[in-house]
Amino acid sequence: MADDIKKVGRILSAPENFLDAELTQEITTKGLNKARRGFLVKSFLAAGTALAGGSAIAASAKRTGDPNILFLPEHSTTLGKPVAANPYGMPSKYETNLLRRESPGLTRVSAASVSFAPLQGLFGIITPSGLHFERHHQGWHDIDPSKHRFMINGLVKNSKVYTMDDLMRLPSVSRMHFIECGANTAMEWGNVAVPTVQYTHGMLSCSEFTGVPLSVLLEDCGYDKKNGKFILAEGSDGSGMTRTIPIDQALDDVIVAWAMNGEMLRPENGYPLRLVVPGVQGVSWVKWLRRIEVGDKPYATKDEAIHYIDLMPDGSHRQYTSVQECKSVITSPSAGQKLLDKGFYNITGLAWSGRGKVKRVDVSVDGGKTWKTARLETPVVSKCLTRFNIDWVWDGSPTILQSRAIDETGYVQPKINELREVRGTRSVYHNNAIQSWQLAASGELSNVQTY
Amino acid sequence: MADDIKKVGRILSAPENFLDAELTQEITTKGLNKARRGFLVKSFLAAGTALAGGSAIAASAKRTGDPNILFLPEHSTTLGKPVAANPYGMPSKYETNLLRRESPGLTRVSAASVSFAPLQGLFGIITPSGLHFERHHQGWHDIDPSKHRFMINGLVKNSKVYTMDDLMRLPSVSRMHFIECGANTAMEWGNVAVPTVQYTHGMLSCSEFTGVPLSVLLEDCGYDKKNGKFILAEGSDGSGMTRTIPIDQALDDVIVAWAMNGEMLRPENGYPLRLVVPGVQGVSWVKWLRRIEVGDKPYATKDEAIHYIDLMPDGSHRQYTSVQECKSVITSPSAGQKLLDKGFYNITGLAWSGRGKVKRVDVSVDGGKTWKTARLETPVVSKCLTRFNIDWVWDGSPTILQSRAIDETGYVQPKINELREVRGTRSVYHNNAIQSWQLAASGELSNVQTY
Repeated sequence: MADDIKKVGRILSAPENFLDAELTQEITTKGLNKARRGFLVKSFLAAGTALAGGSAIAASAKRTGDPNILFLPEHSTTLGKPVAANPYGMPSKYETNLLRRESPGLTRVSAASVSFAPLQGLFGIITPSGLHFERHHQGWHDIDPSKHRFMINGLVKNSKVYTMDDLMRLPSVSRMHFIECGANTAMEWGNVAVPTVQYTHGMLSCSEFTGVPLSVLLEDCGYDKKNGKFILAEGSDGSGMTRTIPIDQALDDVIVAWAMNGEMLRPENGYPLRLVVPGVQGVSWVKWLRRIEVGDKPYATKDEAIHYIDLMPDGSHRQYTSVQECKSVITSPSAGQKLLDKGFYNITGLAWSGRGKVKRVDVSVDGGKTWKTARLETPVVSKCLTRFNIDWVWDGSPTILQSRAIDETGYVQPKINELREVRGTRSVYHNNAIQSWQLAASGELSNVQTY
Repeated sequence: MADDIKKVGRILSAPENFLDAELTQEITTKGLNKARRGFLVKSFLAAGTALAGGSAIAASAKRTGDPNILFLPEHSTTLGKPVAANPYGMPSKYETNLLRRESPGLTRVSAASVSFAPLQGLFGIITPSGLHFERHHQGWHDIDPSKHRFMINGLVKNSKVYTMDDLMRLPSVSRMHFIECGANTAMEWGNVAVPTVQYTHGMLSCSEFTGVPLSVLLEDCGYDKKNGKFILAEGSDGSGMTRTIPIDQALDDVIVAWAMNGEMLRPENGYPLRLVVPGVQGVSWVKWLRRIEVGDKPYATKDEAIHYIDLMPDGSHRQYTSVQECKSVITSPSAGQKLLDKGFYNITGLAWSGRGKVKRVDVSVDGGKTWKTARLETPVVSKCLTRFNIDWVWDGSPTILQSRAIDETGYVQPKINELREVRGTRSVYHNNAIQSWQLAASGELSNVQTY
C-alpha cells in the first residue's frame, strides 16, 4: 500500500506521479525545477508567466531559457493516429496510476474482496465504469446474456421467466444514482487511520443506470397486493446472495437494470442484469440478478441476519438498515496527497444522501471551528452524488480540513463521536461521520480523527 | 459496411448478434428455436413463461424441455474472478460488436476522418468515453501533460502561460453537455439513405466535463473589456485548428476542460486539455488546446471561412453558424435493425438543443400523421442530451417512425423540406431535420426521406 500512498496525489504531489522520470531529469538538468516549484507558490490570481505577447510556440521557447530557440513539440509537426485506432477507447498512457485497488489482507481471498475506486483522482459525479468499485462474495463472471434468465415467482398470479430480449423490449427508464457499500468507511470506526480517501471512502460510485422499473414487472406478473409485503432478490453467482426489500420500496424507484453509463453493465458490476435500489446500501443491488420472489415477511437471509447489521449498545441488532444516510468527503486535497506550497487551491469533494437531494455542503479549513458553504455543481439529483467545490488560500499553517453535508430532509452529517453515542463501539457498517484530513506545515495530508 | 448493418441491431435482430453461434446451434438442436421466437410474439403484458412456482433453477430445467433435469450454469457453481482482475475494467466479451466505426471512403486518410458513435446500442444520455465519436483533422496524439502549456495572449493586460498543474488548482466546474459535429447528418441533405443511425447521427456524444471556466482565466489575464470582442482558440496538433468565438459566449459558459466522465480526457478527445463550448458545433471545442487569443474582430480562419459554412440560395455564406439547433432522433428501433415480430416495443431516442433545455419530444408511428408526446428521462439539462421513451405496440403493418423535438425557446425541429426552403440545395452542414425510419412488414427498418 505504501506505493499507492505516494501515487494518489495527483496534481498536488506532482513530482511523484505527474511528471515522468525523463522529464524530471530534463527539468533538473536545465535547472528549471526550482523555477517550476516557485511558480506554484503564487496564488491563482497571480498565477501564470507574464509575457509581452507572441505565440505559444514562443512561450515554449521562453521556458527553455533561450528565446532564440523555437521549439515545436512533435505532435504539432506530425500526422497523428487515425480515427478508430482504438475502436473502443482507453485512457492516456500517462494515467495508468489511477486504478481501482484492493486493500491487501482485507479478506482471505480476492474473489470475496473489495476493490476501491480512486476518488482522489476523479472529477464530477460520474464514475468511469472502468474504475467502478467492486465487492464480490464469490468472484465475478462474464455471463452469456443469451443464456441468462430472470424469474419472478412467489406471491404472484403468474410466475414468469424473462429472457434479456424480453426485458429490453419493455418500457425503460434512465436515472443517475450513487451506490455505496454498507461497509464503506468501516475502518474509521476503529480509528485505524486508513491512509487515503481511496481506501476510506472508495466503496462508492455513481452512474446513469437504464432498465425496466421493477414495478412494471411485478404488475406484469400480477403480484399479490394484499399479502405481498416484501421481495427477495437473488443473484446467480455462487455466493447465494439474497436480500429482502420492502414492497413499497420495490414499487417506488427500484430498477431491473442492464445498462450503466450508456452501455451494457460491465461483468464485474453484474452483467447482464442487476438490481438498482436507489439510496440503499450496495449489497441490496444484487448483481447477476436471476430471481425476485414476492413474500409476506422478511427473509432473514445470511447476508441480512449475519452480515450488514449493526450490533447496538443494548445488544440488539440494527437489522435491515438499508438506507445510506447523508455523508460527504473532501476528495482533494486528501490524505496521501501533498501540497507543494501555500497559495490558492480548489477544495473539492462529494456529498450524497440515500434520503433524497443534498441541500448544502459546508467546508471547514480550521478543524470545525468555522464553516463556509461550498458551491454545488449541477444537476443536483436525488440519491445521486453531488460534487462540491470551494476556493481556499492556504497560508502554510498546519490545520484540519473537513466537509459536512445536509440533505433535503434537514439531516446533518454527524461527527464520529455523535455517531458513537447512538451506535456504541461495536458497529462495523454504516459509518457516515465527518471525515478529517490533517494538513502538516510540510504540505503532507493524513487521516486523523477529531471529536 | 454491410457487416455493420447486420450488427447494429441489438435486441431486435437477436439471432445475428445477441446469441453466440454455439447457443444458436444448441437451441436449434433442442428444437427450441421456434419456441423462443414465438415467445417474442407476445406483447409485454403477456410476456414471460407462466410457471406454477419453483426456483430459477427449475425454470432453467423447464426450458431444456425435461423437467427432471436440473441445470445449474457454471457461474453458479464456481469461484469467479477476483476483484481488480482488471484494475481498469472493460465491457463484456459479448459486447464486442458495439464499437465506434469509420465510414470507409468518407475521407482520403483515416487521420483526417470521422468515427461514429454506435447510438443504436447506447442507453441514457452519458456516452461511454470509449465510444465517444472522433473527428480529427490531422490525427490524434497522446500528449505528455507535464510538458503541455496553455497560453492566453492578445488584448490582455498580462499574457500568461499555464501548466496543467496551474490550471488544476483553479476553481473548477463540472457540467453535462452534448457535443455534435456541424457535419452530423450531412449525408441526409443529399438523400443518400445512410444505412444506420450510427452513420446518420453518430457524430454526437454527451459527457460530464470538468475544468476551469474560461471567464476565470480571462479575468486572471486582465482581458480588454472595451476592445476584446472575440477570442481565438488554437489546438496544438498539426492541423492548425483555430476557431473564433464571440467574447460574450466565451464569458458565459465556456470551459477549459481536462476531465470527461469523471476521469482525465481521453487522448482522442483532446487530452490533456480541450475547450468545451456548450451548444456549439464540435469544431469549436478545440482539442489539445494550447492558446487563446483575445481580439477585436473575428479571425476568419480556414476552418470558419472555407469549412463549416453554409452556401445559401442567394450565394452568400452563412458563416460563424455555431449553435446547433434543436434536433432529435429515434435510436431504437432504427435503420439496420429488424423487429423479430409484432407486439410491444419501447421506442427510445435522443433529443438536444444548443439553445437550452429540451421541452418536449413527440413521436409519430404513422409517418407524421399523428403525434404522441414521449416521456423524458431526468435530469433534463440545458445543452445536454435528453433521453426519451414511449410505449408502442406494432401491429405488423409497414409504417414510418419519426421523432420531433421542441426546445425551451419554442423552436420546433423542422422537416427536411422546411429546412431546404430556407437553406437551398447547397448546404453540407447543420442538418437538424426530422429523421424517418421506414418499417417494412418483414420487420426490417431502413432510412427514408419523407416530405
